[in-house]
Amino acid sequence: MNYGRFDSAAHEYVVTRPDTPRAWSNYLGSRRYGGIVTNNAGGYSFTRSPAEGRILRHRYNSVPAEQPGRVFYLRDRDSADYWSSAWQPVAKPLDRYRTETRFGPGYADITSDYAGIKTESLYFIPLNQEFEYWRLRVTNTGTKPRRLSVFACAEFTTEWNLLNDLLNLQYTQYIGEAAWRDGFIRASSCSRLPEDKANFANRDQSRWWWMTLVGGDIAGHDCDRDSFLGSYRSYDRPLAVERGTCGNSAGFSDNTCGVIQSDIELAPGETREVLVLLGIGKSEREGRATRRKFGTAAACEKEFTALKAHWHALLETLHVETPDADFDHMTNTWGAYNALVTLEWSRSCSLVYTGEHRDGFGFRDTVQDMLGVVAMVPDIVRERLVLMLSGQDASGGAQPDVRPWLHVPGQMKPTPPGNYRSDDCLWFFNTIPAYVAETGDSAFYDEVVPFADKGKATVLGHLRRALEFNLARTGRNGLPCGLLADWNDCLKLGYKGESVFVAFQVRLGLATYAEIAGAKKLTRERSWALAELKKIDRAITRTCWDGKWFIWAIAEDGTVYGSAKAKEGRIYLNTQCWAILSGYADTNQAKSALASVKKLLASDYGVAMCAPPFAKTPVKVMRAVLFNPGNKENAGIFSHTQSWAVLAEIMAGDGDQAYDYYRSFMPSAQNDQIEKREIEPFAHCQSTHSQFSKKFGMSRVPWLSGTASWAHYTATNHILGLRPETGGLRIDPCIPSTWPGFKARRLFRGREVHVEVRNPNELNRGVSHLLVDGERIEGNLLPLSALNAVTRVIAVIGN
Amino acid sequence: MNYGRFDSAAHEYVVTRPDTPRAWSNYLGSRRYGGIVTNNAGGYSFTRSPAEGRILRHRYNSVPAEQPGRVFYLRDRDSADYWSSAWQPVAKPLDRYRTETRFGPGYADITSDYAGIKTESLYFIPLNQEFEYWRLRVTNTGTKPRRLSVFACAEFTTEWNLLNDLLNLQYTQYIGEAAWRDGFIRASSCSRLPEDKANFANRDQSRWWWMTLVGGDIAGHDCDRDSFLGSYRSYDRPLAVERGTCGNSAGFSDNTCGVIQSDIELAPGETREVLVLLGIGKSEREGRATRRKFGTAAACEKEFTALKAHWHALLETLHVETPDADFDHMTNTWGAYNALVTLEWSRSCSLVYTGEHRDGFGFRDTVQDMLGVVAMVPDIVRERLVLMLSGQDASGGAQPDVRPWLHVPGQMKPTPPGNYRSDDCLWFFNTIPAYVAETGDSAFYDEVVPFADKGKATVLGHLRRALEFNLARTGRNGLPCGLLADWNDCLKLGYKGESVFVAFQVRLGLATYAEIAGAKKLTRERSWALAELKKIDRAITRTCWDGKWFIWAIAEDGTVYGSAKAKEGRIYLNTQCWAILSGYADTNQAKSALASVKKLLASDYGVAMCAPPFAKTPVKVMRAVLFNPGNKENAGIFSHTQSWAVLAEIMAGDGDQAYDYYRSFMPSAQNDQIEKREIEPFAHCQSTHSQFSKKFGMSRVPWLSGTASWAHYTATNHILGLRPETGGLRIDPCIPSTWPGFKARRLFRGREVHVEVRNPNELNRGVSHLLVDGERIEGNLLPLSALNAVTRVIAVIGN
Repeated sequence: MNYGRFDSAAHEYVVTRPDTPRAWSNYLGSRRYGGIVTNNAGGYSFTRSPAEGRILRHRYNSVPAEQPGRVFYLRDRDSADYWSSAWQPVAKPLDRYRTETRFGPGYADITSDYAGIKTESLYFIPLNQEFEYWRLRVTNTGTKPRRLSVFACAEFTTEWNLLNDLLNLQYTQYIGEAAWRDGFIRASSCSRLPEDKANFANRDQSRWWWMTLVGGDIAGHDCDRDSFLGSYRSYDRPLAVERGTCGNSAGFSDNTCGVIQSDIELAPGETREVLVLLGIGKSEREGRATRRKFGTAAACEKEFTALKAHWHALLETLHVETPDADFDHMTNTWGAYNALVTLEWSRSCSLVYTGEHRDGFGFRDTVQDMLGVVAMVPDIVRERLVLMLSGQDASGGAQPDVRPWLHVPGQMKPTPPGNYRSDDCLWFFNTIPAYVAETGDSAFYDEVVPFADKGKATVLGHLRRALEFNLARTGRNGLPCGLLADWNDCLKLGYKGESVFVAFQVRLGLATYAEIAGAKKLTRERSWALAELKKIDRAITRTCWDGKWFIWAIAEDGTVYGSAKAKEGRIYLNTQCWAILSGYADTNQAKSALASVKKLLASDYGVAMCAPPFAKTPVKVMRAVLFNPGNKENAGIFSHTQSWAVLAEIMAGDGDQAYDYYRSFMPSAQNDQIEKREIEPFAHCQSTHSQFSKKFGMSRVPWLSGTASWAHYTATNHILGLRPETGGLRIDPCIPSTWPGFKARRLFRGREVHVEVRNPNELNRGVSHLLVDGERIEGNLLPLSALNAVTRVIAVIGN
Repeated sequence: MNYGRFDSAAHEYVVTRPDTPRAWSNYLGSRRYGGIVTNNAGGYSFTRSPAEGRILRHRYNSVPAEQPGRVFYLRDRDSADYWSSAWQPVAKPLDRYRTETRFGPGYADITSDYAGIKTESLYFIPLNQEFEYWRLRVTNTGTKPRRLSVFACAEFTTEWNLLNDLLNLQYTQYIGEAAWRDGFIRASSCSRLPEDKANFANRDQSRWWWMTLVGGDIAGHDCDRDSFLGSYRSYDRPLAVERGTCGNSAGFSDNTCGVIQSDIELAPGETREVLVLLGIGKSEREGRATRRKFGTAAACEKEFTALKAHWHALLETLHVETPDADFDHMTNTWGAYNALVTLEWSRSCSLVYTGEHRDGFGFRDTVQDMLGVVAMVPDIVRERLVLMLSGQDASGGAQPDVRPWLHVPGQMKPTPPGNYRSDDCLWFFNTIPAYVAETGDSAFYDEVVPFADKGKATVLGHLRRALEFNLARTGRNGLPCGLLADWNDCLKLGYKGESVFVAFQVRLGLATYAEIAGAKKLTRERSWALAELKKIDRAITRTCWDGKWFIWAIAEDGTVYGSAKAKEGRIYLNTQCWAILSGYADTNQAKSALASVKKLLASDYGVAMCAPPFAKTPVKVMRAVLFNPGNKENAGIFSHTQSWAVLAEIMAGDGDQAYDYYRSFMPSAQNDQIEKREIEPFAHCQSTHSQFSKKFGMSRVPWLSGTASWAHYTATNHILGLRPETGGLRIDPCIPSTWPGFKARRLFRGREVHVEVRNPNELNRGVSHLLVDGERIEGNLLPLSALNAVTRVIAVIGN
């Protein structure tokens, strides 16, 4: 069963049934002013920080679902019937109410037909602005004139701090104000305090926001939420809308809102437009200036065009045509967009994430989040890399998170020794080379960046420090300690317990370091890395192979996790994949490990993280036992890890199995089985209930996780195999044997490369030479020297 | 306009209109298992702690208001019409749905009539039990047989920790389970973990609760919230109820609930009873044992009778009959009950307080909360006094709060010097003498109690230490420093700024100490206190009189607050009152100060805390500027302080003015103007919007504040003037001159005293002799020697 379809030409997803099993959402704006919008116009807005800058209130996990939002009510002044321009919140019967929502990058556009009136409500935040647009177009599709009232409605926070607004009511119900003044709703929190806009973190300041409506005859307003709604009523039938007139209430303490009523008349066939602008600042200052500049239909249309152009340009970095339209939807639009959204928002805002305790850039999350977006936003990646490198302590470990507004490189307290995680800086070995390969910016390795606490080093020096950090912290088997945690928060090995995952990460780091050092002719550095690599390989060889697969970890007390002898968590996906990704596993080990993964972990909806689920393992060593079986880290399908399984299969050469795994967690592939997935088929998710769960196939926590970045990287660089290197673009696809080939257009180093891959022999991989603008080049590297403004490459697999 | 009436004989309030402007609430149970219930059966349940032991979920400040709750849906199987046994959540039109809610101490009893069916739903938690009863009686009031389905419905938390349950969704939506098993709904959080019931603070344990239904034919169940409700539906029309059958869903991750469907048939006139029991523990263990013992109509009735008997016995401590029925409602039932509720719950749970950051006993709150309940629960007060004394540091200052489950006297870290508040231990001088006077337990002063951090002392030693603490911390004018804050959190004087309020508290403390020492013949102690008292009086005299009233405070930088010269906060209620309460003010000062209070602060709804409101004073010295004008500490009517104005007028001898002030904030006096007050007319509140607010008269934050204890103490000990002393019961009323007198029955030292006060000359006060069982006793002290099992006293004012 589906609830919509992809419109690839428009970079849109079209929700065709509004009663999606869960609210589906999209992102608006940027950290300057951002928001969430759902397919029913639910969601919220904030500035700077979802935890500290909340403008529009949201009730999480609520009944009714995901209210309030950005509501346009319409009321027929003759019949007294009323509805909303999205199906919710009034929720007219769906046999009489037809609607669809178009989600595109940075906007939602909802078209509805009811009672002879067609509406189109568009929501977006213009580029680099601190306000949001709600544009309502109303068309009389009937044959008689119509007299309508439009009520634009938003529920405000009273304090911008999320927790106070939602739960510290004996305080925050006394500080909000909202009032109608000169055509604006003027809203504030603690209005008597001075503003201190330059210092967002200062909570002791007044905060201001505003809302205005252009179009129709302004007929009234309400600024007190409960006056508008009436007591014991909900957004499905506000008193003011039912009555047909606002109460012109002022908001003073309790709950404030912004409701503006505009009356319009429509001849048959006539369309009228109503614009709502809602933003931060004072109405008489920012509000007035914004309305003057942006308060016209033309300005709105222009901004919407610019917004789309901005996003489409980013998405144009790569365009593919493969035999799998689902794959194309993700690769050309939604996977790329999801990775960009993740880069912007980390784990701070969605219908699940509130921002609370998650308001900065989690160190390892963020370093990984860059991997998939290097090609689209290399400059942002460079800046973010420098930021994160400056979050590394001089010890080589990292600060757990970096909050740009509080982060002063060189002056942070070092992370307490017991609080280091073992993997934080190791992810640089994935991301930094990818950045350099994309841009050719090899000088980046020599750039000097301060450590978080003291001292500074070149980027290469930071990388060495990262390796030294782990090499200096090994356990009794010579493997790196897991410290507070490795990638898997849930595994508590004891501080000196050993992580096999980290062992493979260190191995990859050493190999990568040796390669960089080699390219830079730093012979001693290279030798050091290779010598350390031999040592760690010996330690791995001594202890990590269990017979059919690699073990998971060794606790401080010697307990081995992820062994065939264990009753729970017998096999762990990540160490199988990373044994291969790191180049450690030999062919037989790889084959055996992957066969075990397939047999013991794989399912139609992805590969479980481990098996069997934990039930009796003490929570103090394996916190995943908190979660229900088949959920999240307790043998659930953790989406972040899925790409590693794909990459391992690719490295082992099995493009068919790799692609099977890729499709199994690819959201778009589940568009027609939403009754299982429930959440957005156009966004990745944190996890899916595995075969060990009672809700097998059900996905949760959409959008923000480590998944999108790794998946987009895997799809583009390894399945399609369009892999930048310092010296050029490697063309090394590993595709399903059933694919006759694919076409791709990729921007690389400012040039346009058109690639046609042909697969006449139904193979997975193996390109031995390229035809570049008609010229044969041996091997599969498109060298920089061959790049023209537009370059056309033909690559035949198996030739 | 009223929404109900007091039923004094039953100790009940009867809500006669269910659409109260705000949800009205009452308290169930105890810290063992407690809950909130509203007039529409909304509310929540928890064990031990509302922040850490949440069983039934609550959405604060929600739309729709205050859902979910403890719902009985009824559905006519023939007509398919359905409704709820409380008006909400289905909310049938009130012209066809008649209902009233009886709130009594520890229960709510809701009677409704709709469509020929009468229901009575009773909610209570039996004494000393860890489960709650919901009892539904259904009567067919028509002439035809009826076939009904009853759905009992509760929404569960998934983790007992409030914040995680409401906001850490990416975690808590994966740990809940609920399933039907052997006639029970068996609900759990993290079911795989062992239990650790002895250690409630251990979050890494499984938690269990259960629900069962006795009566009718069990026809189905639902344990998955969204299966029961259906997507995009609310509690007003759950899918399962509309359909008429539960889905028998299991709860596994996401949101769990407890819904049990029972089908019943009713002959005309027939009544059937359905009992729901819901409690903590495992269904197969605690659930089964509880149902066996309590799962019958007789057991439920017996427990309800016992519950009422328990509360009525406490309330029987004092029974009065005055000319003011509103006063009697508060004094005989609601004020006393409110004080007891506050003692139990501090500031941790209501429809406003969530428990978050307020989960223990705030030091100064709790010491004051005992004042009003000494007569009713002297043993609990004694125990609580010892607990709080053990929260005093050896320095004489106090821990900011005491959480019994974490508090180890003698082993706590002392409060950092900069974090001491200046008033914490000074409240002991109000409460401890009141306890000793009530009980005659003078030996209490000699009891040795440890300090929080180190050392120990007698109670008297603790009191001396408290005085020494403040005497050692004085500012440049010789007045006590305000430290982190005095009673008024909002005033930030700088650490060495001086608090005039505290100066008066110290003065009262010294005078009280001298009196105790005198009674104990500790001459040197007495002399020390009197000498210090002289010193502080001199300091006060030098600086604290502003000409017409007493100043508020002197900041570290010398700024004087509460002076006629100030533009904002020119006059402060508390220092006027405490100048008098402490015995400092001379007659002229008292007269002038009280006249200024009346002129500048008094209103029909109480006395504002200060005036004019703050607008430009920097927030760093006066945080009240955060609040809207006329709200809370920013010139609002802060209910806690109202009794001090009453007491000051009584001490100044104006019983008419005192009573005017008392009535102005007395909730019951506002029963007929609920359109102003909005909240419960039977519970005190934290504050009321003052004449400086746009919502003048509107009250908020019911039940839990410093108000109830002080108000009940003021009414009983000073208006009625029935004031225990070590040597007997003082009978010293100060009543309105319009009262011809009053009658009271009071339990005192295990005896029953009947007092009749006569006021033939329309005076306020002045009892010169008593007739005790017919015998004349000079003065107004009923001595212990005159007490019989039942003693009858006649006191005539002015004679």
